[in-house]
Amino acid sequence: MKVGFVGLGNMGSGMAANLLKAGHEVTVYNRTASKAKALVEWGAHYAAHVADACRGEAVITMLSDDKAVERVAFGEDGLIKALGKGAIHISCSTISVALSEKLAEMHGAAGQRFLAAPVFGRPDAAASGKLFIVAAGAPGDLKACQPLFDALGPKTFHFGDKAPSANLVKLSTNFLIASVIEALGEAMALVEKGGLNPQQYVDFLTATLFAAPVYRTYGGLIAGKKFEPAGFAAPLGLKDVRLALAAGESLRVPLPLASLIRDRFLALLARGGESLDWSAIAQLAAEDSGLKSTQAAVG
Amino acid sequence: MKVGFVGLGNMGSGMAANLLKAGHEVTVYNRTASKAKALVEWGAHYAAHVADACRGEAVITMLSDDKAVERVAFGEDGLIKALGKGAIHISCSTISVALSEKLAEMHGAAGQRFLAAPVFGRPDAAASGKLFIVAAGAPGDLKACQPLFDALGPKTFHFGDKAPSANLVKLSTNFLIASVIEALGEAMALVEKGGLNPQQYVDFLTATLFAAPVYRTYGGLIAGKKFEPAGFAAPLGLKDVRLALAAGESLRVPLPLASLIRDRFLALLARGGESLDWSAIAQLAAEDSGLKSTQAAVG
Amino acid sequence: MKVGFVGLGNMGSGMAANLLKAGHEVTVYNRTASKAKALVEWGAHYAAHVADACRGEAVITMLSDDKAVERVAFGEDGLIKALGKGAIHISCSTISVALSEKLAEMHGAAGQRFLAAPVFGRPDAAASGKLFIVAAGAPGDLKACQPLFDALGPKTFHFGDKAPSANLVKLSTNFLIASVIEALGEAMALVEKGGLNPQQYVDFLTATLFAAPVYRTYGGLIAGKKFEPAGFAAPLGLKDVRLALAAGESLRVPLPLASLIRDRFLALLARGGESLDWSAIAQLAAEDSGLKSTQAAVG
Amino acid sequence: MKVGFVGLGNMGSGMAANLLKAGHEVTVYNRTASKAKALVEWGAHYAAHVADACRGEAVITMLSDDKAVERVAFGEDGLIKALGKGAIHISCSTISVALSEKLAEMHGAAGQRFLAAPVFGRPDAAASGKLFIVAAGAPGDLKACQPLFDALGPKTFHFGDKAPSANLVKLSTNFLIASVIEALGEAMALVEKGGLNPQQYVDFLTATLFAAPVYRTYGGLIAGKKFEPAGFAAPLGLKDVRLALAAGESLRVPLPLASLIRDRFLALLARGGESLDWSAIAQLAAEDSGLKSTQAAVG
Repeated sequence: MKVGFVGLGNMGSGMAANLLKAGHEVTVYNRTASKAKALVEWGAHYAAHVADACRGEAVITMLSDDKAVERVAFGEDGLIKALGKGAIHISCSTISVALSEKLAEMHGAAGQRFLAAPVFGRPDAAASGKLFIVAAGAPGDLKACQPLFDALGPKTFHFGDKAPSANLVKLSTNFLIASVIEALGEAMALVEKGGLNPQQYVDFLTATLFAAPVYRTYGGLIAGKKFEPAGFAAPLGLKDVRLALAAGESLRVPLPLASLIRDRFLALLARGGESLDWSAIAQLAAEDSGLKSTQAAVG
Repeated sequence: MKVGFVGLGNMGSGMAANLLKAGHEVTVYNRTASKAKALVEWGAHYAAHVADACRGEAVITMLSDDKAVERVAFGEDGLIKALGKGAIHISCSTISVALSEKLAEMHGAAGQRFLAAPVFGRPDAAASGKLFIVAAGAPGDLKACQPLFDALGPKTFHFGDKAPSANLVKLSTNFLIASVIEALGEAMALVEKGGLNPQQYVDFLTATLFAAPVYRTYGGLIAGKKFEPAGFAAPLGLKDVRLALAAGESLRVPLPLASLIRDRFLALLARGGESLDWSAIAQLAAEDSGLKSTQAAVG
Repeated sequence: MKVGFVGLGNMGSGMAANLLKAGHEVTVYNRTASKAKALVEWGAHYAAHVADACRGEAVITMLSDDKAVERVAFGEDGLIKALGKGAIHISCSTISVALSEKLAEMHGAAGQRFLAAPVFGRPDAAASGKLFIVAAGAPGDLKACQPLFDALGPKTFHFGDKAPSANLVKLSTNFLIASVIEALGEAMALVEKGGLNPQQYVDFLTATLFAAPVYRTYGGLIAGKKFEPAGFAAPLGLKDVRLALAAGESLRVPLPLASLIRDRFLALLARGGESLDWSAIAQLAAEDSGLKSTQAAVG
Repeated sequence: MKVGFVGLGNMGSGMAANLLKAGHEVTVYNRTASKAKALVEWGAHYAAHVADACRGEAVITMLSDDKAVERVAFGEDGLIKALGKGAIHISCSTISVALSEKLAEMHGAAGQRFLAAPVFGRPDAAASGKLFIVAAGAPGDLKACQPLFDALGPKTFHFGDKAPSANLVKLSTNFLIASVIEALGEAMALVEKGGLNPQQYVDFLTATLFAAPVYRTYGGLIAGKKFEPAGFAAPLGLKDVRLALAAGESLRVPLPLASLIRDRFLALLARGGESLDWSAIAQLAAEDSGLKSTQAAVG
C-alpha cells in the first residue's frame, strides 16, 4: 500500500521501518526532520510537510499526545485539509476518547475515513513487529488496512465499528497495567517490611497465579528498584490515567482505583520523579511505610 | 507419617483424603463429627477430641479463621496441652500474622514445633492434590514434613525460618487477587458503559498482557455476572483483606488499595451480598456507574 | 463608577441590582436578553452585544463556567477586543486557575487590566449584598474597584497581586465545603445505622466544636435528606472539584480527598442525581451502608 | 456523691480535682500511685487497689484505651467483681463500641449499672471544668449522675438509653475532627504551593464559612507547622480512627474518608512521627506535593 507515516519517535521509527520491510511504499514525516534520515536510506520517501505524507491511500499517526495529534490533524497543513476523499487516517497514538470522537466526525465530514488502532508494546516490540493492535472503525476500512497491521504485529483485535472504542480499550488497559504496579507496590512493601525478599516473592507470584508478562516485567522492576532509564516515563503514565479518568467522567463511571493511581503519579512528579519509569509509583508505597532504601531513590 | 488432621471443611476433607492416598496414617477430627465419616471409611482413624488427633509426629489444622484456630490450639483439650514434645503443628489456615506469632511462641515454650503452611487453591484443587503451598519455619521441620506437602500439591514455596512469614505471604497474595477483581471491575464498567462487550474485552486481555489464571477466572465471572454460588464467599474476602490491613497496621505499612477494597466488601455486605462470591465487589463499580443490569443483581 | 455587567443568572442579577442601588452606572448584558429587563427598569443601560458593556471603567463577568467566560472574553465581539486601554475586567465567576492566568496575560498584552474576584454566597446573599469577596490583582486596581466590591458584600479579602490566586482560593475553599459534606455523610451514616437520630447528632455538633455556618447548613440538609430543590446543583459541584483537581495537577499537588469527592459526584450523576443539590453526595455513604430510606431518594 | 475515680492521666487528674472542688467524696486510683498524691492532698481518699475505688455509688474510669479498661473492669480485683449491686460504672474513656457493649452486658448481669460518658476537650478543658460530655444509658442513672457531670463541664448531651451510643458519637466526632485536619492539609498544600500564605488563608476561612473552633485550632497548627509538643498524639489519633472503622465494620458502614485518614496515620508513624500531634498528618499532603520545608519536619 501507499501510506504516509507521521511521528518517528521511539515507537514510530520501528513501526515505519516494518512497513517498509513488508513492501509498502512509505512517506515519512517528523517535526524534527533528522529522525527521518535512516528511514529514507532504507527506502522511505521524505515529506517536508505533513501534507506531503497525505498523498497515499492511508496515513498513520503515531504521536505522543492529544496536542501533537491536534496540530497534525487540524493545522493549516494538516490531515483534514490534505487527505484525499476516501483516504484513511489510522491513529495509533494513545489519545483521548474525546479527540478520537472529534477526528471521526471531522474526517467523516471531509469525506475521509478514520480508524483508531492504538498499539501495545514497548519500543523493542515496535522494532521487531510484535505489537498487539487494538483496532476499531468501519469493517471495510479495517479490512483494507489489515496488510499494514500485519506488518506491525502478529495480532489485531477488533472492537467494533466506532473508532473511539479502540481508544477506550487502550486507556482501560493501561489503567489495568498501572493497577498492577500499584498493587505490587503495596504488597511488596508489606512483605519487605515484614522481612522477606521482594524478588523471591515475585518469583513465587509469577510461578503460580500471576504467571503473566505484566507481573514478571513490573514485579522485577519494583523488586530491583530499577526505575531508570524509563521504559515508559512517569509523565506519560500520568497522561494515560488522566485520559482514562476523563473517559470515565464523560461516561459517568467513577474509577476510585484510577483516582488513587493519579494521586500517586502527582506525588512522584512532585518529588522529582519526572524521568523515572512509571513503575516508580510503586516506590511511594515503600516510602510511606518508612522503608529507607527506596526513600533515597526518589527524594 | 503418623499425622492428625483438624478441620474437615471443603478444603480440609480433600487434603486429608490425599494424605491417606499417599500412605500416611491419618487421625481426623472435626467439630461436626459426621464429616469425618467418609474419611474413616477410607482408612482414617477417628478422633473424638482434638487431643486424640495429637498423638502423631505432626498435626495439621485447616480451619476457617483465627477464632477457630484459637479454640483448637489454646483450649483445655487443645494442641498446646496435648501435643508431645518435638511434635509439629502445621497450620494451613489463613490466619492473622499476629496469631501465627503467638502460636510460634507458645509451641516453642511447650517444646513443640510450629510451621505455617497456608495453601492456594479452591476446593477442587484441594481434592485433586493441586494446591500451591507456602511454607515457613525451621528448615529441619520443613524437610521432615515435605512428604505431607507432597501429598497436598505439586509445589511448596519456602519463605524462611519464621513461620508467620508464610502467613504474611498468603495475606499479601490474597490482597493481590482482590486488587485484580477491583481493577477489572472498574475497567469493565468503563468499557461496558462505553458500549463494548465485557467478555470480548476479557478475551483480549487474557490473550495478551494478562494471560494469567487469575484474570481468566475473575474476568469470566465478572463479565458473566456469575456471583452465585460462591467459590470463595464475600465475608471470607473481607476477613482476608482485614487481616492484610492488620498486618500492615502492625508493621506500619499503609495499604490504600487494600483500604479501598475493604470498603467495597463492606458495601457489598451492607447491600445483602453475604452469600455472593467475593468477586461480586466488581459489581459495585458497575452500580456506581449506573449500569442497571448489575444493580438488580446485588440490590 | 461606570461599569458593565455580563451574566445575569441567579447570582448576577442580584449583584447587578446592588451595584445600581449603590449609585453606579451599570450597563448589563445577558445572552438571554429577557433577563436584563427588570434591571433596565431599575435604571440599567441595556447592551445588545458584549462589546456594548465594555465602554466604562470596568466590566464584571459573572458566568457559569470556563466556556462561557471564554466566549465572552475571546470572541469577535469580546472583552479583549472591546475593552479600552486601562479598563478593568473583574472576573467574579468560579473558573479554572488556568483560564484566569490566560485572561491576566491577554488583558495585559492588550493594555487592559484584570482582577479575579470570585464570590462566596448563595443567590439570596447575592441579592442582599452579603457576599464574601476574594480578590487578587494589582493593588491600585483593587483599590479603584473597592466601591464596586462594597456594593456586593460587607467584606473583601485580598490575596496578593496575582489575579489567579483568588481563583485558587475559591476552588480550595469549595473543596473544603465539599469535604464537610463527605465527612458528614459518612459520620451520619454511621450514627444513623447505629440507631441514633441524625438531626440530634447535627445539633450536638453545631452546639460544640463544629459551630460554623457550613456544618449547620449541610448538616441540616443531610439529616433531613432535603436535596431538592438544589441550592447549588451537583453538576456544579463536580465542576468545582474538577477545577480544584486540575489546579492540583498543574501544581503537582495530590488531593486524595478531592479525588474521593469527585468519584462521589460521578456516582451521584450516574444514578440520576443531576438535579439534586451537591450535598446529595452524602447520600451515597448512606446507600453504601444499606440504609434503605435514602436509597429510594437517589436511585 | 461518694465516687471512685480510676485513671489519673492528663485528663483524669483535672476531672477528679473538679469533682473534689464540687464537694464530692472522691476515692482515686491510678496504676502509678504517685499521680494520686496531689489529689490526696486536696482531700481525695487513696485507693491502693481498683477494688478500693468501688465502694461508693459510682466509679468513673478515664483510661487510655480498651486494654486499660479491660484490665480495670474484668481483672481479679476489677469493677465487675468489686462494685456493689446498683452501683454505677461511668466510662469516660474513648473506647470501642464493642467493649462498651460488653461492659453494659456484664455490669447488667452483675446487677450493676453502666453509663458511657466520653468527653470532648483537651487537658486544659478538663482542668477548668469545661469539657463537653456525651452521655448515654438508663435515664434514671443519667439523672443520678448529673451532679458529677456538672462538675466536669458546662453541658451534657444525652444520646438515648443504650450506653454504647455515646461511644459511637464520640468516635464519629473524632473522625470528623480528623477529616477537618485532612481537608485542611490538602487545601493548604494547594494554596501554599500556589504561592499563598497558609496563615492568611486560615484567617480568611475562619472569618467566613468556617468560623468554628476546630478550624481555628487546627488551621493554626498546620499553618505554623507546630506539631510538637502533641496536644493529642498521633498514635491516639490512629487508635480513634481505627475504632471508628471497627464500628463501621461491625455495622456494615463503609467509611472511605476514615480509611484514607487511617492510611495517613500509618504513614506518619512509619516515618517516625510517634511523638507528634495528630494534626501532623496534614503535613503528609504537603510532603506529597514536594513542599520542602515540611518534608524536613517529619522525615
